[in-house]
Formats: sequence, structure tokens, C-alpha cells
Amino acid sequence: MSVVTIQRKVLEKNDEVASVNRRYFAERKMFVINMVSSPGSGKTSILECTLEHLKSGLKIAVIEGDVQTDLDAQRVARFGVPVAQIVTNGGCHLEAKLVNDALSSLQLSDTQLLVIENVGNLVCPANYDLGEAMKVVVASTTEGDDKPLKYPGMFHKASVLLVNKIDLVPYVNCSPDRLKKNALQINPTLKIFETSCTTKQGIPEWCDWLKSEVVKQLRA
Amino acid sequence: MSVVTIQRKVLEKNDEVASVNRRYFAERKMFVINMVSSPGSGKTSILECTLEHLKSGLKIAVIEGDVQTDLDAQRVARFGVPVAQIVTNGGCHLEAKLVNDALSSLQLSDTQLLVIENVGNLVCPANYDLGEAMKVVVASTTEGDDKPLKYPGMFHKASVLLVNKIDLVPYVNCSPDRLKKNALQINPTLKIFETSCTTKQGIPEWCDWLKSEVVKQLRA
Repeated sequence: MSVVTIQRKVLEKNDEVASVNRRYFAERKMFVINMVSSPGSGKTSILECTLEHLKSGLKIAVIEGDVQTDLDAQRVARFGVPVAQIVTNGGCHLEAKLVNDALSSLQLSDTQLLVIENVGNLVCPANYDLGEAMKVVVASTTEGDDKPLKYPGMFHKASVLLVNKIDLVPYVNCSPDRLKKNALQINPTLKIFETSCTTKQGIPEWCDWLKSEVVKQLRA
Repeated sequence: MSVVTIQRKVLEKNDEVASVNRRYFAERKMFVINMVSSPGSGKTSILECTLEHLKSGLKIAVIEGDVQTDLDAQRVARFGVPVAQIVTNGGCHLEAKLVNDALSSLQLSDTQLLVIENVGNLVCPANYDLGEAMKVVVASTTEGDDKPLKYPGMFHKASVLLVNKIDLVPYVNCSPDRLKKNALQINPTLKIFETSCTTKQGIPEWCDWLKSEVVKQLRA
């Protein structure tokens, strides 16, 4: 039995549980996004801005995935939304089973939007479906504009790209246009927003769009 | 046969090949560093600065690891040093066997310093010994100061921490002192340099120290 076979079986098993999760979300008309990025791209800050902007109009819950610590869950809990922390203890990605386990620990009645913040890793989480409606990849301008070409898997799997820390462009060696062009070369269907959690640029546009997707799901 | 057992066997097999690599390096008195970080922390830029600073005084060669593209190898080749590109095709880390394969494609006669630039991933490469003398972890100030606590494995395994993009501190939410304190909490023996490839702050200090380590190896 080769390692490749084992890996395929792991992914098949994950896909089965992801289907269970997806059914669970559909029955409750819950819109679910899976936020992915490199460490430190600003997933948690984007999430904080999103909660600030949308929590009065939508029922939101959060699942935090981290290799270690519950620092992010503490940040999110300040917004008064239900939050569950998954600590992977060295694991490099969330799996559908971990999310399924977390669901039972959350108060999800009437939740309309569930945000899953994945482990900071631009490679491995691309292969693990959690049952989400879409993956949202956050790429910071500080990481440079070549990342979509160098880590194509994640940009291929994502539906939305947030080009974050757009306020830092004057100080870093990154062309947002080239970053977007590189991303669209990998995935021409990507929906793209330029965002900054410092200046709040792009946050209303991103939140309004996200809310419209949640509403679509509720009416489906 | 469980997946955990397979994973252990993969790591055992990797450690065996890493030992072969380590013997190969020792016989040639070659000092080898394994550069690791999140995507976009500045590993390649640090490498460029290091080559600029040291290539007249040391014989240096480079192995570039990337999920996709040879963009980094192209950047490094401009310095006229031998460089081999490993493309992992979706793989999230380098393994000792890939490095061993790359060695045969490089002109390494008299090489005193071999730099291996790993895939940008702050999780998985921590577990894979390549036969190097030490891991050098690069953490950018733009990623925030909590990363050592959230991704402790890599900081635990590294010997050196480069706190990079130190010039961007005025524009980001990061205390370098807190970052260093968090890193030393995980690994009190870390040797730390603050660096910037834009202002060149800390580059001479890092390069001088690296050269002294290479010279120690040559005299051993």
C-alpha cells in the first residue's frame, strides 16, 4: 500500500464528511466561507472588520483554526458572536471532520453566515473541502505580487481574492495590478476586492457583496 | 496500517536520507542552511542580499524549493552562483530525497556554503530534516508579532530568526520586541537578527555571523 494511496483515501474520507457538512449547512440555509491565506496576511483582521460591519444585520458564527493557541478566538469573541476554536496541534490544515466536531459545540440556531478561518498555510488547506460554499483567499501586498503563480493551487480553488494591506503599497515591492493579473491567469473567475483593515478601504464593498451572497442563500 | 504509522515511516525514511546528505556535506566541509518562512516573508530577498554581500569571499551554491515556477531560481541565477530548482508540484515542503537528487545536478566542487530555500510554509517544513546544519526562519514584521506562538514548531526547530522587513514597523501593527520575546519563549537559544532588504539594516551583521559559521565548519 503506497503513501499516495493512503493520501487519496484521506482525501476521499474528508470529501465524504465535507458532503455531510454541506448538507447540514444547506438544510439550515447557512452560508459558509472558508478563509485561507499565508500566516499573517490578515485573515483575522478582515474577519474583525467583517463582523463589525455585518453583525447588526446578520447572525454570524465563527470557527477558528490554528496550529496552536486560541489568540484568534479571543479576538473574535469580543464581537459577541458564537466562536469555536480548533487547535490542530501541529496539523497544517483544517479537515471536514474537525469542522463537523466543532459544529456541535456552537450555538448555531438561526446562524446565516458561518466563517471558518483556516490555519495560515497557502498550500495544504487547498486540498481539504470543509463543506463550505466558497474559499476566500487573502493575499497581502506585503507578500509580493508573484504568489498566485508560485502557489497556484489555492488561487485555483478560491472563489474570492482579497488583496489585503492595500494601504502598504507605497512601502512594499508589489504591484496590485500585477498581483490581480497573476491571480486571474490562474483562475479567471475570481471575484477580487482590494482591502485594508487600517484605512477600511474596500471593506464596505466586500461586506456588501458577502451579505448579498448570504441573502441569495436564504432565498434559495 | 494506520495513516499515523505511514506518516512516521515517511519521516523515518526522510531522516535516513537526511543523514546521507549530512555525511555528504560534512565530507566536503560544506555549511548548509535551510531557509524557512511563510510565503512572502522575504526569503529570496534575504538570499539576494546575502549573495551580494558574501559571494566575493565565499563559494556559495543555492537550491530553490517552490510549489510551482522557477521565478526564484531566475532571481538567484543573476548572481552567477550555481543554482538548482526543485518544483514540488503542489508538495508543501522539501524532503531530503529531493535535495539529494538536486545535489547531483549542481557544480558543488569547493562550495563552502549551500543555501536551501524551502517552500513558503510555516508549518510542514519544520518536520523534514534535509541534512542542513541549521534552519533559519524568516518572520516578517508585516505578519504580526504573534506568529511564534501560533506556529511554534518552526521556531522550536530553527537556530536563527531573521525579523525581516524591519523598515515597515512604522506602518504595521507589530512590536519587534514582542515578536522576539514570543520567539524566545518558544526557543530560548534562538540567534536573532533584525533585517531589511530595502534599507539593508542588519544585513552586514547577519552575513558576518553566517560567514563566521562557515569558517568554523571549514576549520572543524
